[in-house]
Formats: sequence, structure tokens, C-alpha cells
Amino acid sequence: MEDHAVVPDPNRADYAAGAAYLDGAFMPVGQARIPVLDSGYRRSDVTYDVVSVWDGNFFRLDDHITRFRNSMNALQMTPSESDDEIRVILNRLVALAGLKAAYVSMECVRAAPPPGMTRHPWNCRSYLSCYAIAWTSVATPEMMERGMHLMIPKTLRIPPESVDPTVKNFHWGDLTRSLFEARETGADYTVLLDVDGNVTEGPGFNVFCIRDGVVLSPRRGALEGVTRLSVFELCDELGLPYEVRDIPADEFRDADEIFACTTAGGIMPVSRIDNRILGNDRPGPLSVRLKDRFWQRRGEGWHATKVDYSVV
Amino acid sequence: MEDHAVVPDPNRADYAAGAAYLDGAFMPVGQARIPVLDSGYRRSDVTYDVVSVWDGNFFRLDDHITRFRNSMNALQMTPSESDDEIRVILNRLVALAGLKAAYVSMECVRAAPPPGMTRHPWNCRSYLSCYAIAWTSVATPEMMERGMHLMIPKTLRIPPESVDPTVKNFHWGDLTRSLFEARETGADYTVLLDVDGNVTEGPGFNVFCIRDGVVLSPRRGALEGVTRLSVFELCDELGLPYEVRDIPADEFRDADEIFACTTAGGIMPVSRIDNRILGNDRPGPLSVRLKDRFWQRRGEGWHATKVDYSVV
Repeated sequence: MEDHAVVPDPNRADYAAGAAYLDGAFMPVGQARIPVLDSGYRRSDVTYDVVSVWDGNFFRLDDHITRFRNSMNALQMTPSESDDEIRVILNRLVALAGLKAAYVSMECVRAAPPPGMTRHPWNCRSYLSCYAIAWTSVATPEMMERGMHLMIPKTLRIPPESVDPTVKNFHWGDLTRSLFEARETGADYTVLLDVDGNVTEGPGFNVFCIRDGVVLSPRRGALEGVTRLSVFELCDELGLPYEVRDIPADEFRDADEIFACTTAGGIMPVSRIDNRILGNDRPGPLSVRLKDRFWQRRGEGWHATKVDYSVV
Repeated sequence: MEDHAVVPDPNRADYAAGAAYLDGAFMPVGQARIPVLDSGYRRSDVTYDVVSVWDGNFFRLDDHITRFRNSMNALQMTPSESDDEIRVILNRLVALAGLKAAYVSMECVRAAPPPGMTRHPWNCRSYLSCYAIAWTSVATPEMMERGMHLMIPKTLRIPPESVDPTVKNFHWGDLTRSLFEARETGADYTVLLDVDGNVTEGPGFNVFCIRDGVVLSPRRGALEGVTRLSVFELCDELGLPYEVRDIPADEFRDADEIFACTTAGGIMPVSRIDNRILGNDRPGPLSVRLKDRFWQRRGEGWHATKVDYSVV
């Protein structure tokens, strides 16, 4: 991989840790803070999306902005910025931070109600909070090398009947709780089941398993990930059949291969789940093929939008 | 009711809107903000509790601090402040804000991980965020007068198997979603069911129904409210039998009376649920008796801890 270090620029030293846009103003990311009275914090009434920048290119920028807009609509949030304005803001954040490889978050936050009004959501305006920081991965380099170790926890994923997982949200209480279960067993991360015992997703990533050469991904209870969509496209390119359907825990655990995917990490092979060691305790061959293809295609400019670094 | 207006003091004009304590420092509430990179915001990895002040007295202060400490322990959060220090902080916040009647929140927030560490919760420290603002009620004066109008929404309460409702939390996505359903029908608030069709709680309040003179409250899926505990104590004082058990939606809807309770509002009678009008479309007699008794007892110094206004 190439060197993606920030190029220090004395004129924008304040943005070394990242750049933020909060409720209409640009600022260093360390200054971006959410008022404690806002519903976005105290009711987690917020939706978000994350797009990555690699080699100076956004990946599937329009797909992320479209999903972000759909999420805002689902929550009846109407910030003042248009999709085009969001595109300009995100570009400027990456340019301000001087990042060639970035994790870029766009968030819409429900504010506090005006004085004298009840906290019903329609009494509150919504505003954008966005930032760009150095690219970060869910899987450490060590995990990428040896394969991630997953476990299936007792904690169940919050069901779609309560909170819609396709509207990307910060309701991570179940995911966080599951990580404490993982800690007990020494696993890196978890993959949660739904109330019917089917696999859903992990903390910040979609999951897949491969059985008899077929790539399987859960049908419901998970985010409809943009990287997941990219995996399906890569399957088509490589001639690998794939299927979206319910996957019971046992079927997942006994698969030939398992991998996860996310904007913050790409495709991440798994080498262990619960007490089972997959294959040779290394990333599986098809998972590695998909991962390598993913980065090859990104290097070729697949779904890329060039960052304009002149607009600081 | 008495006049609980803030007494303006030119020396602490900044605290007119309320006082906050954030990560070790006191400040006006408008300045208290949570960094966008902290897990307390971006994973809603936070627990909280709320205590009220009425007539210059905290109500059940120790009960709230004890529950808050239990919640922090459940999430493996260890801020630097002891329970005694929290008691002093909350008192000082009320004194700084000069409030005789206050809504006082104590929150413990998981921070961002140190640079280079993964976002696993045990890599992050936790800190306190507390504030005191003017007393506020879930029910408006109009709702208190006519009785609240509730509805049972399609949205289900997040189950205990996903997020423990006895650890007070900001996972309000289901509650917020349900309020939009209430808006469609003209109801004020909602009461959510669990997956088995039993009543749980509403957005920020516990619920009760009264059938044949017996006060009933849901057994699981809800916060074990401190005001709910006070209701049980008042039932004992008034010789009203009560029972904690599963309450199916139909049984709840067909009750003789319904009421809700919360720190931010006390006991709040309900006069309508879905399409059903209870009694005379006014607060029910036993609900009113409990409500009046509640405020009478508080006026008598029941479970009270005097605020020391000299420590500003």
C-alpha cells in the first residue's frame, strides 16, 4: 500500500487532526461538538453515512449521499443543505485536512426544541455535522493478515420492528454490549443474530459466508451496505454466484469461508468463529480473491470521484 | 402551584439558561457539548439519570445516584467522580442556576479511543456530563388538565435481549419513530408493546393501568422508574393494591384508568387511548388521588434532600 500520510501545511496546521463542518461552519474536528440538550445526542436522533477516500478519490460518493438523503427523509429531517452542497462540503473537508486517504462522515442531527415547546421531533430543526479524518479500518493490520476472529454473542441485534437498520444510526448499545462478550472469549468482533436465530451484522460491518462456492449475505436485520453492494458487483465480475437470504447461525458457523465488509476497511476475511477454525486458520481463498479484486478495481478508478484539493 | 421562576442574579447571568458540569469543569449549559468523535455521541454509548428539584429540594437523590452508579457499572464505565462527589456537583449546578424547581441530569459518556487504538469500549475512558435546567414536564398543563391522549403504535420497544432498559439510555429511535405514528392520529404520546404484545413504556415515562381497583404496572421491557417506585409506596399509604405483571395490550386498553409517571412530570393521568375514551374523558379518580397525594407528600418533605444554595 502507498503512503497516505497527511502532508503538513503550516497554513492549515489546525486541520492536522481532521476538518469538520458543523451547523454551517467549518472548523478543526476537535472543535466540533454536539450540544448536550440536542436530541441528536440525548435521544440518538441522528442518521449518518460514511464515504471513504483512497488515493485522492471518493468511492461511490453519490451512492452514499443518496442513501444519506433517504435516511434523512425516513426520519423526516430536512437540513438546509442540498445534495450538491453536501458534495461540495465533503470535498472541502478532505481538502482542508489534506488527506489522500480519509474516513468522511456526514451526519444529520436533530436539535433541541425551541423554548416552551415539547421535545416532539417535529418541533426541532435538524442540522448537518460532517467531518474528514485520516482513513481508519475496523480490522487492524494484524487482523487483516491472520483473518478476523468473530464470535456469536447472546446479545441480539435490535430488530427492524424497533429501529430500521437500513437507516444508518448510532443505536449501538447491542453492538457495544456484544463486544464485551467477545472480550471474554478473546474474539476480535461479533456477529449478532436476530430473534429468529439468523445472522444479521457486526459492529460496523456486513457479513458474508461462502458455502460450496456460493457467496451468501443476510436478507434482513442489517444495513444495506454500499461496500456490500460492491461485493455483489465483484461477484458478478468474477463469475461467483451470490444469494441474499436468511442464514441460520449454524449454517454461518459451518461455512467454508466467512468475510466482513465495510467502508472503513473494505473486505475483511475471517479465520475463526466461536470455537471453529476455518480452513487453515488463514483468510479463505475466495475471500482473498474478492479483497484483492476490490483494491485492484479501486486503484483503477472504479466508482471514483476525484477530490479537488484546490478548494481549501 | 408556587412560582418557581429563576431569581435573576447579575453575578451569574451566564447561568440563566442552566448550569453544566462537563468532564471536570463547570460552565453555562449552552457551552456543554459532546465531541463528535466520542462514542457517547456516535455510538450512543452513554447512560444517564434524572433527578428533580421542587421547592428547593431534591427528590430521592440517593436513589437516583445509586441507580446511575449501577447503570455505569453495567456498562463498565468508571468516571473519576465518587457518588459523594456527584452529589456535590449536582447541588452546585442547581445553586449556580439559582433554580428552586429543576430538571437535573447526570450522564456518563464514553469518550473516543486514544490515537491508534480500535474503538472497542474498554479502550476508551468515560467522563461525566451533568446539568441543571428549569423544571420541565413531559405533559403540558393542557394535558395535565384534560388527561394525556395515548396511542399504541406499530413500532415495538427495543427488547431487553438487545438493550437493557433498566440501564437508562438514549436509544430512543423506537420511541421517536412511535411519536410520528402518534402525530398521524392526533395523540400526545405513545405506549409501546414488546414482541409478545405486552405493554412496556412510553417516551420517557412508565405506565400503569387500574382494573377493578388494582394498580397494574408492566413486569419487563421498561425502566425500573424511581417515580414508579414512589407510586407503589403511595399505593401502600392509600391502601391500594398493586401488581407488577405482564399486561397485554387489550387488557391495558380496556382498563378503568390509565396513568403515566416520570421524574419530569410526576404522575400524569391519561384520558384517551387509541379510539377509546376512558371514564368521562377526564383524569380518573384514583389517578388523581395518587397524583394529589404525590405532590402533597413532596410538599411535606418526602424523600427530600435540601439544596444548599450557598455553594455557588
